[in-house]
Formats: sequence, C-alpha cells, structure tokens
Amino acid sequence: MNGAQALLKSLVDAGIDTCFTNPGTSEMHFVAALDRAPQMRAVLTLFEGVATGAADGYARMADKPAATLLHLGCGLGNGLANLHNARKARVPLLNIVGDHARSHVQHDAPLQSDIETVARNASAWVRTSASTQALCHDATEALAACIGPPGAVATLILPADVSWSEGAQPQALAPAAAPPLASTASLERLARVLQAPGRKALLLGGRALRQPALLAAARLAAHTGVELFAETFPTRLQRGAGLPAIERIAYLAELASVQLRGLAHLILIDAKEPVSFFAYPGQASRLVPDGCTVHTLCSAEQDVAASLEQLVHTAGAAQATPALQPAQRPARPSGKFNADKVCKALGHLLPERAIVVDEAQTSGLLLPLYTAGAPAHDLLTLTGGAIGQGLPCAVGAALACPDRPVMALHGDGSAMYTLQALWTMAREQLHVINIVFNNRSYAILNMELQRVGAEAGGSVAQQQFDLSQPALDFVALGQGMGVPSRRASSTEDFLAALEHALATPGPHLIEAVVPRSVSGLKLRLLPYLLRSLRHLPRPLALGVKRAVAP
Amino acid sequence: MNGAQALLKSLVDAGIDTCFTNPGTSEMHFVAALDRAPQMRAVLTLFEGVATGAADGYARMADKPAATLLHLGCGLGNGLANLHNARKARVPLLNIVGDHARSHVQHDAPLQSDIETVARNASAWVRTSASTQALCHDATEALAACIGPPGAVATLILPADVSWSEGAQPQALAPAAAPPLASTASLERLARVLQAPGRKALLLGGRALRQPALLAAARLAAHTGVELFAETFPTRLQRGAGLPAIERIAYLAELASVQLRGLAHLILIDAKEPVSFFAYPGQASRLVPDGCTVHTLCSAEQDVAASLEQLVHTAGAAQATPALQPAQRPARPSGKFNADKVCKALGHLLPERAIVVDEAQTSGLLLPLYTAGAPAHDLLTLTGGAIGQGLPCAVGAALACPDRPVMALHGDGSAMYTLQALWTMAREQLHVINIVFNNRSYAILNMELQRVGAEAGGSVAQQQFDLSQPALDFVALGQGMGVPSRRASSTEDFLAALEHALATPGPHLIEAVVPRSVSGLKLRLLPYLLRSLRHLPRPLALGVKRAVAP
Repeated sequence: MNGAQALLKSLVDAGIDTCFTNPGTSEMHFVAALDRAPQMRAVLTLFEGVATGAADGYARMADKPAATLLHLGCGLGNGLANLHNARKARVPLLNIVGDHARSHVQHDAPLQSDIETVARNASAWVRTSASTQALCHDATEALAACIGPPGAVATLILPADVSWSEGAQPQALAPAAAPPLASTASLERLARVLQAPGRKALLLGGRALRQPALLAAARLAAHTGVELFAETFPTRLQRGAGLPAIERIAYLAELASVQLRGLAHLILIDAKEPVSFFAYPGQASRLVPDGCTVHTLCSAEQDVAASLEQLVHTAGAAQATPALQPAQRPARPSGKFNADKVCKALGHLLPERAIVVDEAQTSGLLLPLYTAGAPAHDLLTLTGGAIGQGLPCAVGAALACPDRPVMALHGDGSAMYTLQALWTMAREQLHVINIVFNNRSYAILNMELQRVGAEAGGSVAQQQFDLSQPALDFVALGQGMGVPSRRASSTEDFLAALEHALATPGPHLIEAVVPRSVSGLKLRLLPYLLRSLRHLPRPLALGVKRAVAP
Repeated sequence: MNGAQALLKSLVDAGIDTCFTNPGTSEMHFVAALDRAPQMRAVLTLFEGVATGAADGYARMADKPAATLLHLGCGLGNGLANLHNARKARVPLLNIVGDHARSHVQHDAPLQSDIETVARNASAWVRTSASTQALCHDATEALAACIGPPGAVATLILPADVSWSEGAQPQALAPAAAPPLASTASLERLARVLQAPGRKALLLGGRALRQPALLAAARLAAHTGVELFAETFPTRLQRGAGLPAIERIAYLAELASVQLRGLAHLILIDAKEPVSFFAYPGQASRLVPDGCTVHTLCSAEQDVAASLEQLVHTAGAAQATPALQPAQRPARPSGKFNADKVCKALGHLLPERAIVVDEAQTSGLLLPLYTAGAPAHDLLTLTGGAIGQGLPCAVGAALACPDRPVMALHGDGSAMYTLQALWTMAREQLHVINIVFNNRSYAILNMELQRVGAEAGGSVAQQQFDLSQPALDFVALGQGMGVPSRRASSTEDFLAALEHALATPGPHLIEAVVPRSVSGLKLRLLPYLLRSLRHLPRPLALGVKRAVAP
C-alpha cells in the first residue's frame, strides 16, 4: 500500500468522509487513491479559498473535521484567509498540502516555497511528513490535534514521494480522553459571583451557543437575573422560536460599550473578553467597562457544555424555567425595496431547520431582529473577519446537512472574493439559496473611513469604495457557473424569487439590487448617531441600539 | 503630515505612481491620503490576488515597482500565490500591508494574525514599521530592497496608528550605486569556454531576455557556435521578427533532457540551472546531463546586460552578425476548430508591439511556434507555477503600457483563480484581449497523473480533472464583470471575434470552446510518445521536440 492509499484509509477509518480538493501534480497519487476509498467524498473546488472555507462550514455543522487537499505553498496561500476564519472559529480542520518529493526540494523548482511558515499563520499543528512509514502516524496526530477541544487547524505537509512510495501502514485514531470539567472551586466561586450585587452577564461563545448550553445559561438567567450575551460573530448559534434568545455584542464598539456599560461581573463561557474589532484613534480597544471583573468558566481544553450544566446545579438553578423565544415572524413585506425588506422577507419565509450563513455586512444589519422568532435555525457568521467566507461556508454546511436548506447572505463586495464556490454548489447540486445584496459599493468602508477619523475623503478615496463602474451582474455570474439566478429590484420580485428557490431543490442565486443605505439610516449619518448614543440615558440608548445592533 | 500622507509623498517622489488596492478599515488613512497624491494612480481590485499579480505584470513592463495596498494578514494571504510568482520572476514589488494599531495587537481581535510569517514566504524584505517617524525611512529601505538588482518582493507592514499619527517626514530614495560587472577573470574564463571543444550553450533568463542582451548572445552564437536557450518560463521575453530567435527549455523534463543532451558546457546568464518542474518517480530532478560543466556569467546582484556585452568584446564577437528571426506568419487558419487553430490565428493576426501573456497551459503549447516570426512582441509567462497569474498580469501590463495591446491567453482552469481581474480591466478600460481556452478540464493534470506513474485513475480520480459539470460559461462570466465577451466554436467565429477585438479599444473576452487535446495529439498518448523520444537518435528526437516544445 502506498502512502496516499494508507493515508486515505486512516482518514476514512477515523470517520473523515469529506475532502475539499484543488489538486496539482504533487497530489496525483492521493487523487488516484480516491478510487480505492469510496467512503471519502472528494469535492472539487476551483479555488483553494473555497476548499478551506467549505471545510470550515462543514466542521461547524458536522462537528467533525473535513480534510482539504491543497497544492504546495501557493495553494495553501490561496486558502489561508478562510483557514484564518476557521482558526478563529475554533473548528477542527485538517489540511493535506502536497509538497515536492524530498529529493527535489534542494533544486528550488518554480513552485518551491517555504510551506511551513505559511501554514503556521493559521495552524495549531504543522508537520512535514518525513517518511511513508511515519505518514499515517503523523495523520492521526494531526487529527487528534485538530479535533481538540478546542478545535483547531492542523496542516500535514505531504511530500510527493512520501505519498507515492510503498510500505505505508494505515493507523487507527486512538480514542480521546473525555475533556475535564471546571473545578468545583471554580464553580462555587462563580455561583457566588452570580449572587453578588450589581449588573452581571454571561458572554457565551464557541460551543456554548448550541441548544443545551443555551438552555443551561437561560436557567441561570431565570434563577439569578444574570444577563446573557453572545459573542459578536458566532461560529454557530442556535436560535429562533423555542430556544433562548440571546443578544450579540454589537460589531460597532460604540454600541457594544452601551451594551456592557455598568457591568460589575462578566463571565466568559467559551468566549474571549470582548474587544473592538478595529482600533480607532482615541478610543479604547477593550470593551469591558472599568471596574468590571472578568471571570472564566473553564479553559478551552475543558468540557464547556458539561461545566455550564454543572454551574447550573451549583447555583441551584436546575429547576428554573428558561425564557424561550416565542414564535413570531414579520408580516409579508411590501413597498419600497431595500436591504431591510430582504431581511424582513427572510424572516417571513425562513423554512424549518434552515442554516443561515451571514456575510451580508451592512445589508444584514437587521436580519437578527427579523429572524429572532422564526423556526429554530443555525446561524453561521464570519468569525475571523476575512471576507469571502460566506459562499464556501455554505458549500460545507450543505454537504454536512444535505437535508437542510442553506440560506446564504452575501454583500456584493464579499461575494467577489470566493465566487467560485457557486460552481461547486452547482456541481454537487446543493440546496443553497444565495442572496447577494448588490448595493454597488464597499458600504462598510464608507462608514469605517469616518469612524477612524480620516478626512472625509475626496473623490479619489470615494472611488475606492465604489463598485458601480462597471456594475457587477450577479445573475450573469451565477449562471456562468451553472447556478439558476434571478434579479430582484422590487420587494415583490424578491418574495417571488425566494419562494421559488425555497420550493426548488438545488442551488439558487438571487441578486437583490438595493440602495446604499443601512436600515433606512444613511451611512454617513450613522457615526454621528453613534456618538450621540453614548450620551443618552441607558434605557433610551438600549432602545436605539436594539434597533441597529446585529 | 500624518504617516499615510508622508508615505504616499515618499513613494511618489521615488517615481512609484501605481498602487493596486484592496483596502479595509486599517488602511483607511492611506485611502484618504490618496486625494492629496494625485500622481499616484490607485487601481481598485476585487481580490488581493489580482492586486499582487497586477503589480507583477506592471513591474515586468514598467521596469519599476508598483505598490499594493492589502488588508492585514488575510489580505496578504489572498495575494500570496501571485507574490510567489513575482518572487520567482525577480521583479520589484512593494507590498503595503495594513495592520492593527500597535496598542490593539495585544487584544487578539478577530483579524489579528502573524503577518510577518506569511510575508516571509515571498518577501526578501519584511518590516513592521515601528513609528510614524520611522515610516518613510522604512519605505525607502523597502524600495531599495525591492528594486535590487535583483528585483524582489518587499513587504512593509503599516500599523493603523503609524499611518494616522502626525509627525511624519517624507524621505527621498537615495540613488542606487551602479551594480558591478562580471570580473575580467570571469569574462576571460568564459571566453575560453566558448572556444572549448564540444557542445556549448548559453541559458538566458531574467533580464537577459530583453533585446540588447539577446543581440549580444546572438553575436556570441554567430561567432562561437554556442547555442542559445531561454529559461522555460521567462519573466519577459522579447521575441518576434527582427529579434534573435531563442528556444525555451521545455516544460516536460522528458523533452528538456533531449534539448540538453550531450552538452559539455552550459553558461547561465541571469538564469538558474534548469531542473524538472516536478519530481517524478525514478527520474532525476536535474536536467543538466552528466559531464556538463555549468558556469555562471555573474551573480544576480551584478549588471547582467553590461556583463554580457563585455563578454561579447572579450570573446571577440563584437563585429559578428547576429542571426535574426525573419518576419513570417502562419496562413489564415480554417477548418476544424481546436486549440492549435486559436494559436495559429494569433500568429496570423498578432498586432504590432503586442504584449502576450501566456497562461494557457496545454492549449498554448504551439503558440511559440506560430508567433515566432510575428511582429516583435513581449511574452510574459507564469514564472512561479502558481496558476491564476495571467489575468492579473495582463491588468498590470496594460497599465504600464497603455498604448500597447495585451493578448492574454488563459486555460479554463487557470482563469477561475483570479477571474475578478476582468472587473478591473473593465473599470480601467484596458485594451486586453482575453482568450479563454475552454476544454472543460484540468487537462494538464490528466497528463500529470500518468507522468507521475500513478494508477491510471478510475472514475473518481478522473472527476477531479473534469470541469464539464456544469460547464463554465465564460461569456456570462465576462459580461457579469462588464467585459464584452463572445464565444467561438469554429475557426471562423474565432477569427471574426479576434479581428473585432483588435479593432475595438477596451477589454474583451473570447471563449474558445476547444476539444480536450494537445496539438492534435491525444493527451493520453503524450507520455508514451515522450518516453519513446529518449530512445530516438538526436536529430529525429529534436525534430519531434521542435513540434511540441514551447
């Protein structure tokens, strides 16, 4: 058995059944070995950023790693932005990166580069397999490293000769020990904090945003009055009717500071201390107010969900009744078309068990509001800020959950980074409904230009945010990659297109041509509004915030 | 003056007038400062790989660096593959990569990553600017490092607060000392080698493939009988009627070894010793035959063209008459349509002073043959093997030479990596004629699968090379990005589309729907043919080789 064949057998035996590929010559033996490993589904992508983003989306929904197959350092480079997002999402992901044969490396052939340095940017575990005999051992180590907890990116670099040589032995993945719980002392201390005076909140992230952990947190809230927040960009948030409702920390630091103002205690549950997404001149990066004590339930290596359950018992909240989101949907929208109407239509029509992928940036601002009481669904967001994750993530989510509809929302700027994902959706006939908000601009940058306090920007600067010359035609782009595509320029158009897509299996793209505005507020006014917010009394400020926070 | 303003002024004063951008929040002050630097042309791209590939193409034609403006580690990652190509091309290129404000880094915000490790993969010079005061000094050091010789990639990481703070001073780039010549001893030694018995060849690369160096080499050939070869994938090769004709080392090691067989001496002129592109089981990586002595004219830091001119004098060849390529074009093609007919049509119609960008892989195999006697033109090729360079390279070449037509040839697989370049072509109204050979497959991998000696590959493996389900519609894709696009399914269609494009300013895309074959030889037969070549007598083998080598 050659290296590639044994590697594939080891992966399949460990339950890895999906590999997102963009191979080259150095990966040909792996490709040839696919015919002997029918349990492995090899999903071809046209660009490596699609492969890595799809593996991220797959892991979020399947709760196990997919593999990627990438071509040397350049292929890994093309996949790096979405590996960054996967790293920040703490999902398990195994890269297999082909390399030149070991004897060839010294010759500095055209594709030679230092793969390991690139891999380290996003990988918790990196190794160049040194021999065919060691390969499967390396692979199981890589798997153990990426599965965690916490989930991580592992990169196994596979020299072509290690892959093609005979003498490999498949290896079984050793069962992992159960991760430890938070200590009794820690639980008792936190239970006391929950009884302390002052405003208190739990900040839930990562694995704590799934239904069991959310129910535990909601019991604590009901019993102790602790408030619940979710991190700004969740890896996977289960929400909707019948689940506890949870407010996300706002992207805009100006709003987040309003949310957190006056907190005496903040308890982190598989989350990091909230910080501003970017730095702004004269503004603090930390969002936690002065005087607030920050606590941590347990480390990332521990069992978050079980520890939280334990805290419920320690705090005496086991019998508390969690507050659950009642079912409610916005009415069928009508009238003037804009991004809000799209979000409202989604709230009106969101199907059962949907997976919502949100990379709509400014256009999706009110989506969380309109879908709060929709049927229970999973929300996947851009965890690392590297745009171009939404389309690939939808590919992976749809492959992990073939019986669930995927609603994927993209800004026009975002959609152009990894648009090649559409082809894989068509090839695999995935039921993904892509909605591209085409406002013909990098609208968020227009806002950020002012937030960072730069000069208002003359016409040259403004042109850097303008995507109208020429206008992108997403219907043509979608059709060019085999995805049935429609344009909606009115609320009625959009509703009809969405209803058609929901009723018709396979991929769809709806281009929503929307004006450059955020939720009816002109972007240019938003910074001034935000500044004034900080001077409003808290209940009023909260009201405004609830209207615009994600 | 803030950091961004002073940086832009320093760049403009140093003659840098083009910046390929894909900015984010951390680069907003740089963007705002563009309005004060009208000499800097900021060219927006929709994906960072377009920005870096365009900067590469620009440098090849302008002989000076362009800048890129990229957003943190992820933006740099997206640009990495084409930075790799630029590194292998040894062109000057300056990346400006925004980073979080220095005080923000400690907070590990979502977009935080280790930018320097990624940058090192492709950059000869990397620095995170430590202060606004030091910024312009850093920038001039970066420029000096990238300008060389040899040209290189330099990456200046620009923290947001270094950019936005006041107190920066523009700095002038110190004039560089003239690079040294090859030593007299070295020149005299090489002159003796040129008189030695046995087969001898010059291998020209890098800056030695421009007209003056080519003429010098052709004088040496006329005077001493030394043969001339060009490296396989030139950064920029000047060729066509009235220039010395030069044979490129073949991509296929099987053919290259025939080209080099029996050499006693090989003299490298700004080139590296030729090696196989990939390693293959049981085959040597080195292409230079045993017993051949390899010499080097001068180091990459020396003045290649002047040293070669000096060698002409030392060898007594100054009065020799160089052999020049006579003007000749293939007849207007007709009949059954395939990739060869496209190449023939290009040879038939290639306009004066064209820039030819070739990333057509298998489909472009005979292009060099058919364009050998066309009007003098520049050929830019994929220097680092990271596909997805052709479209961006054409953007940069067209901006560097606005009065010259750019003919850009792409394989269908290659075109999909950085297709977003089409939008920038439309936005800037560049006269680039893109020809996409759509054979609906990764045809080269089908060939490589067999060359690496992998199993023939069952249906699963074959599907990894198949781009037919769904078929990509490049006319729709081009139009979706604002580029007038036509499909050609016959030789007559293609000729008409090409003549229309040549006569009509602005960008064009012609999708040539071609069968999956290489130059009439079925790909599956090629490896067997190649193997048999090595057993043929040299004159016969050379004849076959001339028919299929690039």
